[in-house]
Amino acid sequence: MSDYHAPLRDMLFVMTHLADAASLAELPGYEEATPDLLSSVLDEAGRFGSERLAPLNQTGDRDGARWTPEGVLSSPGFADAYADFVAGGWNGLTATPDSGGMGLPTLMGSATHEIWNAANMAFALCPLLSASAIKLLENHGDEALTAAYLEKMVSGEWTGTMDLTEPQSGSDLATIRTRAEPAGDGSYRLFGQKIYITWGEHDMAANTIHLVLARLPDAPTGVKGISLFLVPRYLLDDNGEPGTTNDMRAASIEHKLGIHGSPTCTMVYGEADGAVGYLVGPENQGLRCMFTMMNAARHKMGVQALGLSDRAYQRARAYAFDRVQGRPADPDAPASAPIAHHADVRRMLLLMKSQIDAMRALCYVTAADMDRAGRAPETEDRRRHQARVDLLIPVVKAWCTEAAIEITSLGVQVHGGMGYVEETGAAQYYRDARIIPIYEGTNGIQAIDLVGRKLLRDQGEAMRALLADMSATRDELAAHAELGTIRTALSEGIDALGTATESLLEAGKLSGEQATANAFDYLMLVGTVTGGWLLARQAMVASDALDKAGDDRPFYEQKVATATFYAAQIMPRLHAHARVVANGFEPVLSVSPAMLAAG
Amino acid sequence: MSDYHAPLRDMLFVMTHLADAASLAELPGYEEATPDLLSSVLDEAGRFGSERLAPLNQTGDRDGARWTPEGVLSSPGFADAYADFVAGGWNGLTATPDSGGMGLPTLMGSATHEIWNAANMAFALCPLLSASAIKLLENHGDEALTAAYLEKMVSGEWTGTMDLTEPQSGSDLATIRTRAEPAGDGSYRLFGQKIYITWGEHDMAANTIHLVLARLPDAPTGVKGISLFLVPRYLLDDNGEPGTTNDMRAASIEHKLGIHGSPTCTMVYGEADGAVGYLVGPENQGLRCMFTMMNAARHKMGVQALGLSDRAYQRARAYAFDRVQGRPADPDAPASAPIAHHADVRRMLLLMKSQIDAMRALCYVTAADMDRAGRAPETEDRRRHQARVDLLIPVVKAWCTEAAIEITSLGVQVHGGMGYVEETGAAQYYRDARIIPIYEGTNGIQAIDLVGRKLLRDQGEAMRALLADMSATRDELAAHAELGTIRTALSEGIDALGTATESLLEAGKLSGEQATANAFDYLMLVGTVTGGWLLARQAMVASDALDKAGDDRPFYEQKVATATFYAAQIMPRLHAHARVVANGFEPVLSVSPAMLAAG
Repeated sequence: MSDYHAPLRDMLFVMTHLADAASLAELPGYEEATPDLLSSVLDEAGRFGSERLAPLNQTGDRDGARWTPEGVLSSPGFADAYADFVAGGWNGLTATPDSGGMGLPTLMGSATHEIWNAANMAFALCPLLSASAIKLLENHGDEALTAAYLEKMVSGEWTGTMDLTEPQSGSDLATIRTRAEPAGDGSYRLFGQKIYITWGEHDMAANTIHLVLARLPDAPTGVKGISLFLVPRYLLDDNGEPGTTNDMRAASIEHKLGIHGSPTCTMVYGEADGAVGYLVGPENQGLRCMFTMMNAARHKMGVQALGLSDRAYQRARAYAFDRVQGRPADPDAPASAPIAHHADVRRMLLLMKSQIDAMRALCYVTAADMDRAGRAPETEDRRRHQARVDLLIPVVKAWCTEAAIEITSLGVQVHGGMGYVEETGAAQYYRDARIIPIYEGTNGIQAIDLVGRKLLRDQGEAMRALLADMSATRDELAAHAELGTIRTALSEGIDALGTATESLLEAGKLSGEQATANAFDYLMLVGTVTGGWLLARQAMVASDALDKAGDDRPFYEQKVATATFYAAQIMPRLHAHARVVANGFEPVLSVSPAMLAAG
Repeated sequence: MSDYHAPLRDMLFVMTHLADAASLAELPGYEEATPDLLSSVLDEAGRFGSERLAPLNQTGDRDGARWTPEGVLSSPGFADAYADFVAGGWNGLTATPDSGGMGLPTLMGSATHEIWNAANMAFALCPLLSASAIKLLENHGDEALTAAYLEKMVSGEWTGTMDLTEPQSGSDLATIRTRAEPAGDGSYRLFGQKIYITWGEHDMAANTIHLVLARLPDAPTGVKGISLFLVPRYLLDDNGEPGTTNDMRAASIEHKLGIHGSPTCTMVYGEADGAVGYLVGPENQGLRCMFTMMNAARHKMGVQALGLSDRAYQRARAYAFDRVQGRPADPDAPASAPIAHHADVRRMLLLMKSQIDAMRALCYVTAADMDRAGRAPETEDRRRHQARVDLLIPVVKAWCTEAAIEITSLGVQVHGGMGYVEETGAAQYYRDARIIPIYEGTNGIQAIDLVGRKLLRDQGEAMRALLADMSATRDELAAHAELGTIRTALSEGIDALGTATESLLEAGKLSGEQATANAFDYLMLVGTVTGGWLLARQAMVASDALDKAGDDRPFYEQKVATATFYAAQIMPRLHAHARVVANGFEPVLSVSPAMLAAG
């Protein structure tokens, strides 16, 4: 069995050379985030992930969270690990120093989130959800609420959770029914049921703070009548400590395909007098408040997919270098060579690794854009970076999570029959991965967001700026004759993406439905080409470093090799996606539901 | 929850119009296999699948087979269903009448296997393995052995199983260590361990007959020293009935990702005096004997993938027509329209359905080729059909099973969060599907078989014959102006496949490793284009039938629509696969194992 080792060198390479981490320390508030600091934080995080979280991943899958009448119990060992996580200060890494956080850039937070998710995705979901709740409270909570709750949520002493979904209300939140009635003292009483509440109840923290969407009496129907409430599991006593139990409970937890260590709760509010809740943000502005954390939350899904994929890759690679089976066709292979010497096995490992490199580049570069969008001194710079973030967030979420499905599936395949046996561990990643394309906005919704909102609203401006950056890289590649495969592929990608973009802008003049019927393939096209662009930059840096690399030579050779493989074997997919977009909306829209129902 | 209904109309359409079932009744020995008979057998099979097998699928997943010290117990209800299966005569459908079979064509057997696998894949594996054992015994067993065992295996009273794999010997059987020592009475005593033995022990039948690969003393090393033995769990008494227990047992069963209802056994032979076994076929010719059943067994994997995919589709479609969520952009959609009215959901359903139509066409047409290869009166016809079968078997196995991974994954996605909850059932198909690309020769091995053996050995003759058939269809399409999208896609497919084929034949002159480094993408290219060719034929038949279709019009409209969708959204993938082949072997072969190990 392979253990997890954070790929610190890969991570630092991307942070340094593609995301330009050093320049973040020049932004106001990030002065302390020097490369040295980032590197040492990363070291520590890698150690914590390997030593404290990774060993609990398979056990947490086998002995998942359990519902009991007295409350939900986390998997054995999770509560202790969480206590250490809090004690290590990991929960507040990117939160503002005002509320006890370390105030480090999102880029740094992304790197540590990669490690937590690789080490133990089920566990990592707990701080991941807390982060969204913290962000909402920071931005929209009034002084009394933030004073009472924020610091302990930032430290991790209390965890946070997001309560949006109801049985009849998933992708479309317009139909939410949970009611919030004013209690007359400024607080509210909530009544209703929420489902799929990640870490909605557990025994790892002294309190669980729910951010709940609900309707006020006489609120307008639809999305404009939804408000946001903070609902603590335990009401605070006069000392601000958890006291009386609120009128809420986890009625059950789901029996899921994966992430068994993460309790997915059905929460019931107000079986007696109503659960005490406090309004966050203005009345009926709950969904607008949600937008504050949506980019960050969706970005974290891409990072989650990245981490899980890397874990699957590490295990598959270890197996491929251990398992001996069959004589490789390679005449130079030793007599009892492991299966990594078979070309088809290396092809599978390269499919995994080259896409993981692209995912990491996309996630980290976007994270740095988020940091610049928030902190760049010039308004225009902030605007420009924000536009890039808004454009790429659906791609980070959906393209990376689709890749995770492929990569974790390949991870099983590399193991052969052993991969299908649960004890091996490869199957768990395949099961765990399947939720990420679904939650935090399905990938179909991401695609519609990309085309319907991000592309059509600014009439392609942000996309053209991205294409211009790609073209600059293509031009730089002219000086690198050794990277011809990469330049050709990138050049084709730029052309195809440009054409597809213009065709959707045209279709958008007809109707939103027509523009978005193949939005999914457009999104995959954007992801494929953007990944190729970033790996082209990776290849140039690595190629330049080769000569003076010394002992590091194999590392840089690998960086050129994965970028070249991506250009040769992943970039070709752009032709498929571009062709689907070019084939238009008719093949989908002309098939009526009735036609599908026939036969 | 949706029940399973065998898609009889879809099945009959392919049997009739693409596989030309009627002409099979003209072959010697198949005289009784008239379209009427096939249709009524199919009706009955559909009923049996829906009523007896499908209801045990989810329960068998939850309460899987169990190992006990007294023997392996099948899932609740399975034994009764198996008794009914045997009583219905289903086990011997395609076996020769000489041994009590019905002697129906492989085409018919494929259709019923689709139903068994759709209804309950774990259950279906039992008769599926029996069929391989029967085939070996029919072809290589001596008179005494066949007299003693064959009839009861054909009826299903006794089940059969294949014992090939050992811990050190999976994809490469050269390293098998199980020993068979002559006992002096013509029988042998076996000693060793076999793993991954599907239905290796259970309580559904009175005896289990193992076909076991083992080495005789002083056998040559490697694949040329492997012999085949029949090893019954219970030795037969003087009346030919199961008597004394043989020296063998299931030491454990695997805890697997899916197919929980199918016990995967570790079999131990010869813990005392050795397990009594009987030689099947000549000494040291065990692997050659195996080739007899290999095409049939690998074909059944494609059919299994087809059945499981259709089950996943039926469930996803039912959900899409039931679940109401969000307002569709379609202005004609009713107020509370189900999600099937969302374009992106229909796109996902069409990705599933169009590929299922192509898989069924490929599986059934190849099955009819198998029938013709065995029974056509003219030698040249038999040779021609056999060459087509040999060429397409790895494609049937690998392309269909890759599609099943995609389709069962989409099935989860269509359900949204509900798909991740095990009770829904969609997740089971995703778990079950993952084994099919692995067993019966991994898909990587299928790809190497296709290029290294099927393509290079006859220097592309069989592939050029297939391309000629495709070109004839393309020419026929000229008379169908309404199918322009399909004709364009097919035309591009023929060109790309021709080019890729010639390039691999060239690479083959360099080395086998170079020709097969991207064999997987070549296989996927063949599958994609062959599927498009068969759906082009489907579209012509359906388009011609439209005018006089009456109430059947929606059915034929759907057949044109799925073929058109396939041309517009699946065929574009051929460009990606063709480009990977065109980009050559360097991106894989230039990456050494050492380079992958760096970092």
